[in-house]
Amino acid sequence: MLRHGVAEEVVGVDRDPEVISAAVRRGAVSRGGTELRLVDGADLVVVAVPVGAVAETVVALAPYLKEDAVVTDVGSVKEPIVRAVEGRLPGLRFVGGHPMAGSEGRGIEQADASLLDSRPFLLTPTERTAEDVLATVAVVVQRIGMRPVVLSPREHDALVARVSHLPYVVAVALMAAASSRDVTVAGPAYRDATRVAASPVEMWEEICRMNRQEILKAIEELERALAEVKTGLQGEASLREILRRAQERRAEADRLWEK
Amino acid sequence: MLRHGVAEEVVGVDRDPEVISAAVRRGAVSRGGTELRLVDGADLVVVAVPVGAVAETVVALAPYLKEDAVVTDVGSVKEPIVRAVEGRLPGLRFVGGHPMAGSEGRGIEQADASLLDSRPFLLTPTERTAEDVLATVAVVVQRIGMRPVVLSPREHDALVARVSHLPYVVAVALMAAASSRDVTVAGPAYRDATRVAASPVEMWEEICRMNRQEILKAIEELERALAEVKTGLQGEASLREILRRAQERRAEADRLWEK
Repeated sequence: MLRHGVAEEVVGVDRDPEVISAAVRRGAVSRGGTELRLVDGADLVVVAVPVGAVAETVVALAPYLKEDAVVTDVGSVKEPIVRAVEGRLPGLRFVGGHPMAGSEGRGIEQADASLLDSRPFLLTPTERTAEDVLATVAVVVQRIGMRPVVLSPREHDALVARVSHLPYVVAVALMAAASSRDVTVAGPAYRDATRVAASPVEMWEEICRMNRQEILKAIEELERALAEVKTGLQGEASLREILRRAQERRAEADRLWEK
Repeated sequence: MLRHGVAEEVVGVDRDPEVISAAVRRGAVSRGGTELRLVDGADLVVVAVPVGAVAETVVALAPYLKEDAVVTDVGSVKEPIVRAVEGRLPGLRFVGGHPMAGSEGRGIEQADASLLDSRPFLLTPTERTAEDVLATVAVVVQRIGMRPVVLSPREHDALVARVSHLPYVVAVALMAAASSRDVTVAGPAYRDATRVAASPVEMWEEICRMNRQEILKAIEELERALAEVKTGLQGEASLREILRRAQERRAEADRLWEK
């Protein structure tokens, strides 16, 4: 925000004062502290806490907000969060958000603004979201160099289950299926596919709990796709066709990502 | 080989003379051409052709070898190749090889020697392999900066099915299960997990054909691991335990890989 000149001042709030000191040192925030009332006066509040704590955090900070403040979040699950926030604070100028970027790292020392460059920032308005609230967040998203993508909370959760939560589940399953010796000699494809299994368990446990149904559906889709590859391996379908289709889709994806 | 001073001269042989010119330009080979008889006089011959063509290539170049020449290959499947070579050329000083490194790229322009640094090079002797043949290749492997790992052809194929062929199958299945919209917003974990689906289909079709049984077993192991994650999601087992175990194994793997 500061780096892109989007805000004159960014105020950080964290339970841990050392995180705020580190954030100030890194130039990520102008000043900050541990108390929620520091959000008073803010035009935009971005709630970045574990998905299971977003709604209660928004409720807790709401009393300190100025009347026209806009609130968003960065949680990887949207439907339960948006429903809870809208249910408990019907008048709040809120829209759910989710930046599709990050690493397996955790904490302020792993923060890296360049991870956000040109990445999608999913925004999930509902019929209760005022147009100018969505517009405000979308403009900020663009000015920090990300791409706003608008979809409903439900669409979001189905989509993210397939492209973000499923690769995590697969990484977990690949690690479970491999022996220590396997791992020792593993090549780059294995490392790439399992990297996300290193990310914080508590975060993922909450995500899994809050997006359980969509993740289960995504696993079933993957199981059907694996069953198709098996028919190809067993000569009951054209393996070449299956592999070629995946290759074409991956090439198409690379073209999209380069834009 | 030249870069590390392992050989005074490296002679390249390829069906395409332009590949040889490019290899000479890049300093990968000293000279070369399109004819197999160029292997005469070589102390060590490294056969780098598609897995389905290794055995026939070795048979075709055997007449030109000097008596004590050592032959190895770099195919991703070993049991069928080693059995075929040993069956057809019982006197050949051969040991199967497999460098666990590479990218999804293809062709001389994608070649990158740094991909090999500190990576395992699997060597698969049998009871018919002379000790000095294994030792010769192991020394060369070490001198080009790779780590020799010795195991049987059968162990090799089981292991590689799990850590190399399975991540490819998973990448194919993930691409099959995702829609275009999914792909557009996909994050880094998805890109990492599907990168290998871009690699050459003909190469993978051969690998799948030649290591079919082990790949099918590896898919079944993955399916069981996915079923375990599902029990965790459905509250029938401790999801946290399953995720934590995967995280610990990934951390252990990272420590091994850093060495």
